[in-house]
Amino acid sequence: MLSNYASDEFQKYERIYEKELTKIEAGLNEVFKGMSPHSLYDPCLYAVTGGGKRIRPFMVLLSGAAAGGKYEHVFNTALSVELFHNFTLVHDDIMDNADKRRGRKTVHLKYGVSSAILSGDNLIAVAYKYLMKDVTSNHQYIFNLFTDAIIEVCEGQSLDTDFERKKNVSIDEYKLMIKKKTAILLELCCKLGSAVVGADQGTTEALGAYGHNIGMAFQIQDDLLDIFGDEKQFGKTVGRDLLEGKKTYLILKAIEKSDAKAKKMLNLFITNKGIKIDQISEFKEMYKRLGVIEDAEKEIKQYTALAFEALNSIKEAEAKNILIWLGTKLLTRNN
Amino acid sequence: MLSNYASDEFQKYERIYEKELTKIEAGLNEVFKGMSPHSLYDPCLYAVTGGGKRIRPFMVLLSGAAAGGKYEHVFNTALSVELFHNFTLVHDDIMDNADKRRGRKTVHLKYGVSSAILSGDNLIAVAYKYLMKDVTSNHQYIFNLFTDAIIEVCEGQSLDTDFERKKNVSIDEYKLMIKKKTAILLELCCKLGSAVVGADQGTTEALGAYGHNIGMAFQIQDDLLDIFGDEKQFGKTVGRDLLEGKKTYLILKAIEKSDAKAKKMLNLFITNKGIKIDQISEFKEMYKRLGVIEDAEKEIKQYTALAFEALNSIKEAEAKNILIWLGTKLLTRNN
Repeated sequence: MLSNYASDEFQKYERIYEKELTKIEAGLNEVFKGMSPHSLYDPCLYAVTGGGKRIRPFMVLLSGAAAGGKYEHVFNTALSVELFHNFTLVHDDIMDNADKRRGRKTVHLKYGVSSAILSGDNLIAVAYKYLMKDVTSNHQYIFNLFTDAIIEVCEGQSLDTDFERKKNVSIDEYKLMIKKKTAILLELCCKLGSAVVGADQGTTEALGAYGHNIGMAFQIQDDLLDIFGDEKQFGKTVGRDLLEGKKTYLILKAIEKSDAKAKKMLNLFITNKGIKIDQISEFKEMYKRLGVIEDAEKEIKQYTALAFEALNSIKEAEAKNILIWLGTKLLTRNN
Repeated sequence: MLSNYASDEFQKYERIYEKELTKIEAGLNEVFKGMSPHSLYDPCLYAVTGGGKRIRPFMVLLSGAAAGGKYEHVFNTALSVELFHNFTLVHDDIMDNADKRRGRKTVHLKYGVSSAILSGDNLIAVAYKYLMKDVTSNHQYIFNLFTDAIIEVCEGQSLDTDFERKKNVSIDEYKLMIKKKTAILLELCCKLGSAVVGADQGTTEALGAYGHNIGMAFQIQDDLLDIFGDEKQFGKTVGRDLLEGKKTYLILKAIEKSDAKAKKMLNLFITNKGIKIDQISEFKEMYKRLGVIEDAEKEIKQYTALAFEALNSIKEAEAKNILIWLGTKLLTRNN
């Protein structure tokens, strides 16, 4: 599909993305301006200005445009989803005991756990405030979308934690978890962009399906990158999921397909809740032998195809093309 | 004002309260029915079914009725504010490192800090869900009320934490803190009850003023009860605020009015961030000598008078009388 686009089209989309990114960064910098007490708002500002690709707010803008609106109609909505996303990061980092986020100290490490809890709580409310600025009709539907997404993200995070203790996790359970933990937020971005500009249900569902499927592909890609990513570009230790005993797509698929040799390795992985650093290459070999890399790549391709197919009914050509470009960019990333 | 009411009126109000309380308890028990995962919803259910006076949801019902509606029009709204209140309790208990809440283990002690953070987050979202069930018009105004209250509560909790480190806190700063941390939620209850049944702005503001002033009086009363409450009935250690070095109304007023002897005691209180248990009676004496008990009682009376005055414009006699009865009940409590 993408091979039809000339590279100057790509450059044009990249420029649009960069331009909107600058506005989003500026917008996020303004959210807490003049607010007090500092003990609450400094950690809030720190949390939302730590960089990142800002994919989610950009998806809101694109979906708004794809549904016939203008970027500026959904700009506050775009900020809203980024505030929401950062609430989850701040609280997840406490739960995961994470030290660093995008190369900087995590919020709880810099400001203390209490401030991090409170800032996360506040980010939820401020996210609602920003959403409310753009909504002019259909309040019930839009606020339900947003609220259901918060609930699903909490459920997803709980399932993820449950998986740490659970010995047997199926691929279906894994997919339900990443749907709730990751895909729901991208789905929300696309649905909100569409619903806020007043698009019909069909358009909103189509864009939501794009977001959902990109989200599913994105998370499986993330599992792949953990072990096959370029360490420097990926910015994380290669194989960290294996070291931490995380039940990724690759591990669960390997368990499903395991031969005698793999079974022994995987049982030890489960029992010891992870492996040692010198075993990573052995696991890489096993993944290759069992063909789970291809399985993951196939899933990513399938979800991506579904995502792009969902856009068939969208008439706004440029926004649609940028959504395809963005999906491709995300799913061919090596970091 | 209350002396005009016969005691059989009081008994009637008490019965109405008990009846609605039963419904509220039943409603709270239903909120998470059939939801999964258990790792998320068990702590949520535990948090909201730990008892309590359920003053806040009852205030929503009364305000709905005072504004011309029926209890059932705002029943979900009533549950919503209780969910909101319990979110704050769950997260505050983590921050305060509290072991017990209403005689039971706190959520984070029973289920772990991660589950407690996540349950609190989820309670915010579920609170929005319940509010949404009742709102049929004026969405923007009502959701802004609710969202602003969450933000204020976060600010209030931050200010309260700031006070622990701050040497000089004025009575005005204290009042701003209790306004945000405590009074805002009672104000919200009353405003929501009114706004959800579609009352005019004046009625909503009047009921909000009742809630705000009752909230201010309630918190100062709480500070008084800490040291002059009946230990058995109060259910907490008498003088705990003093032991923990909390900057209550009494301490701040004592600092304002202190003589040479009191100054020495208060400086030590500030420096050591609290006192030893054998100094409690000495502080009690100091409070009496400086007259800060009377000051607190005067403030409580003034806020109560403002609360009841605000109801002058309310025409629904029974709901109004129950609001007055409830305010009196709260402010003459000894636990």
